[in-house]
Amino acid sequence: MDMERVNSMGFGEFVDVFGNIIEKCPLVAAAVWSQRPFSDSEDLENHFFAFIDALPRSGQEGILRCHPDLAGRDLHQGTLTAESQREQSQAGLTSLDADDQLRLQKLNALYRERFGFPFVLAARLSDRDTVLRELARRLHCQPELELHTALGEVKKIGHLRLADLLGADPARVEPPGGWRSECQKDAPLGGLGAVHPSLEAGSGLGEQSTHPHKGSGELKHSHD
Amino acid sequence: MDMERVNSMGFGEFVDVFGNIIEKCPLVAAAVWSQRPFSDSEDLENHFFAFIDALPRSGQEGILRCHPDLAGRDLHQGTLTAESQREQSQAGLTSLDADDQLRLQKLNALYRERFGFPFVLAARLSDRDTVLRELARRLHCQPELELHTALGEVKKIGHLRLADLLGADPARVEPPGGWRSECQKDAPLGGLGAVHPSLEAGSGLGEQSTHPHKGSGELKHSHD
Repeated sequence: MDMERVNSMGFGEFVDVFGNIIEKCPLVAAAVWSQRPFSDSEDLENHFFAFIDALPRSGQEGILRCHPDLAGRDLHQGTLTAESQREQSQAGLTSLDADDQLRLQKLNALYRERFGFPFVLAARLSDRDTVLRELARRLHCQPELELHTALGEVKKIGHLRLADLLGADPARVEPPGGWRSECQKDAPLGGLGAVHPSLEAGSGLGEQSTHPHKGSGELKHSHD
Repeated sequence: MDMERVNSMGFGEFVDVFGNIIEKCPLVAAAVWSQRPFSDSEDLENHFFAFIDALPRSGQEGILRCHPDLAGRDLHQGTLTAESQREQSQAGLTSLDADDQLRLQKLNALYRERFGFPFVLAARLSDRDTVLRELARRLHCQPELELHTALGEVKKIGHLRLADLLGADPARVEPPGGWRSECQKDAPLGGLGAVHPSLEAGSGLGEQSTHPHKGSGELKHSHD
């Protein structure tokens, strides 16, 4: 799909096509339509991201809250969006064994309780081991930084979904300045602060997840 | 449902319950959850409206663009939200005769072309004659004022939907300061400016719709 085609769309068609670039937030696409014409896919993408960046904090948290848990209720009830179903499937999250499923459920719940939004990660750039490791690690980030990291993941997801629709090269998944986790940038390994009280108190999680920052140097999208 | 119950909800349940207070914009409910606890239904409602008011213009237009046409494609394809289906049905829009259907389609198209968002009206407070008359009248409002009027209708719809969910008294459909059409406030009858060129050029619309400001003094929710 070329930009001439995109720029010719009325708002109804535009929202039909791009309404789930940001998961379950057609409002964002519907707002971005005001900014047409778009010079190219990057310009279009930048308008999506600028809208998110301009929201008040509650709105940014709201965007995250519109995302499903990874391997969570929506997956098991078959109520994921088509995009999310495909992404979680590609990351192997639709075929977890019972132990991994239980660990993910518990970590998701701890994450939601700590931050007030669900754990969001671009599943297509990940696999089941990385998902579990990243979730356990990010659980220890400071809330301000974690919000930033999570919105970066929303943008990676949006970039890949846009690339699918536009037939563009999805290789550029990191913009100038980087979307790398702020928690990774600022906190050296082993310097991530106190372990979350829920974990200290004995959550039934295994060794790896009670020291989630271990191994974060191996993360796929942690590149300098 | 009392406020203690509402305030006890996690964000997942809150978005499940209140996600369509603003049509197809669960982002708004998901953002409002950040503001809990809520003292009463009016406090909850005010947070929804404050979020809308704080959006940039593109975001406010975006909210409008997430609304379906009245008696439009979604109604005929059976893809309306449950709330919208009920509201349009109550206004008699699901049983229009062929002539009214055609008039509404044409006026909706002119409205979308002029303002860049669909005609939004709290259908439950209306009926088929009022819908057609209001649409024809508002087509002549100035864009800035019409945006304000349309957002006022979004708030009326949201108020009624909240009242349904909370079992509150829906009688208060107009807040202090009023949601009355700015176009009605500022423009005396007969002083609504030039007729829209598309109408002048012969759109195939009948007499009433080419002079849409006629009769606006009789509108149900035009009270001083």
